[in-house]
Amino acid sequence: MSAALLNRLNPAVSSAIRLWSCRAPVIDHRSAALSHRRPPSVRFYSGVRESGAPLFRQLFESESSTYTYLLADTDTREAVLIDPVLETVDRDLKLINELGLKLIVAVNTHCHADHITGTGLLKKKVFGLKSCISKHSGAAADIQLSEGDRITFGKHCLTVRETPGHTDGCVTYVTGDQSMAFTGDALLIRGCGRTDFQQGCPKRLYESVHKKIFTLPGHCFIYPAHDYKGQTVSTVDEEKKFNPRLTKTLDEFVNIMNNLNLPNPKKIDISVPANLVCGLHDI
Amino acid sequence: MSAALLNRLNPAVSSAIRLWSCRAPVIDHRSAALSHRRPPSVRFYSGVRESGAPLFRQLFESESSTYTYLLADTDTREAVLIDPVLETVDRDLKLINELGLKLIVAVNTHCHADHITGTGLLKKKVFGLKSCISKHSGAAADIQLSEGDRITFGKHCLTVRETPGHTDGCVTYVTGDQSMAFTGDALLIRGCGRTDFQQGCPKRLYESVHKKIFTLPGHCFIYPAHDYKGQTVSTVDEEKKFNPRLTKTLDEFVNIMNNLNLPNPKKIDISVPANLVCGLHDI
Repeated sequence: MSAALLNRLNPAVSSAIRLWSCRAPVIDHRSAALSHRRPPSVRFYSGVRESGAPLFRQLFESESSTYTYLLADTDTREAVLIDPVLETVDRDLKLINELGLKLIVAVNTHCHADHITGTGLLKKKVFGLKSCISKHSGAAADIQLSEGDRITFGKHCLTVRETPGHTDGCVTYVTGDQSMAFTGDALLIRGCGRTDFQQGCPKRLYESVHKKIFTLPGHCFIYPAHDYKGQTVSTVDEEKKFNPRLTKTLDEFVNIMNNLNLPNPKKIDISVPANLVCGLHDI
Repeated sequence: MSAALLNRLNPAVSSAIRLWSCRAPVIDHRSAALSHRRPPSVRFYSGVRESGAPLFRQLFESESSTYTYLLADTDTREAVLIDPVLETVDRDLKLINELGLKLIVAVNTHCHADHITGTGLLKKKVFGLKSCISKHSGAAADIQLSEGDRITFGKHCLTVRETPGHTDGCVTYVTGDQSMAFTGDALLIRGCGRTDFQQGCPKRLYESVHKKIFTLPGHCFIYPAHDYKGQTVSTVDEEKKFNPRLTKTLDEFVNIMNNLNLPNPKKIDISVPANLVCGLHDI
């Protein structure tokens, strides 16, 4: 993030949203102190773990099959919303208010082509809320993110891993303990985002997934931006074994992606222009 | 469960599915040994907790907005499927196979009116699989359940709490550590099942929710049979505070439920007859 942008932040928010430019290693092994808690094989469940884990909610918008994710610190009540959708902003805000949370950041994994982000409407409704997106997205936002930046909420953080290929500005947000990765359209459950518009490049996507996501711990949960089959979560280990596209060779993957022949998303002509002024478009 | 039915079980399955007739207390406080792990306030997230927690997946069927839940023991690989849907049986079995699980039981929370259970088709595809439903449902199944019965898979179990009101045979399945409750249509997120057909009775439903679900620990996750707004999970504390119907007095609740004036579910005429022969109907 540039110094100019940092200076434009509300001081109260800039202290809450601490962004470091230090580059996180792509492979970040868990600490020895935690490792005895981790199972050796693939495991996945939702439940109570040791005190201090972030509050977490997965939410779904059915028209575009988009997942929105709410994370919060249960002590400071600071909250982050990942990939909010315009049509479900009121639902999300109602939940945030009921849970007594303070929404400080709305982040996008990329400039979406299939729906309009909720960021702009959220900024109108939540005083001091900051929008974030990759600096490579070409989209406007309060905070533009780069590889290794961290978004901190209370004692938790999300670290940015740049995962271009679906678009130039795709990123994956990884929790500090590497137990959850929000992969946007880079990696879907048994699938991946298309690469035939918005700077799409199958070779870049393949390398992003293999170098930046498949190097996370095998038990790390994969939370994608979409699912079209009613699946809610996967893991790194599962996708490394069962993803029908990403388990192929690079050449095979490129060939698959170049021959999908998909129709354009219905809302692409209104979504992309709106999302390019992320958080600032006139609704 | 009757002795006759127990005797009809495949011995390998009956040893895995251990059902006790002992009546669990409605209020079952967690052991002191575990309590230091539990947060005092409402928390919810999906993530890794201490080794030994069950594998868990939430799955969605979009036509009837039904949630199916997969739980399994990561050591023995024994798995239970709650409320499978006919149309998504192949998706569920593919996942079960990929994860190397052995599906031993398919349970229903009640005799559904809006979709056909996947139990029958699953029984045709999975050798030795047993179906379960409440004995008060009027539906056929391999195992008929009563208050306090437990379905065991590996070192985990689900305990039956009878929660009639939406139908006579509605039950809630509660994990052994009381961290998750699968409430069927008795309690939905900020809602509840209708009470205007299939033996529906608002007074019974109100008492079921207050006596059998709201007496669980406040942090216990509520996983309903349906959601129509893209919500995936709630907690006991949240529903006690924010459920717009169940926070009312009994008289107010009865009045609300008697004046919903909802149309019948589209598939009621084919779903109920099929589900009354749960697991045995001819597809």
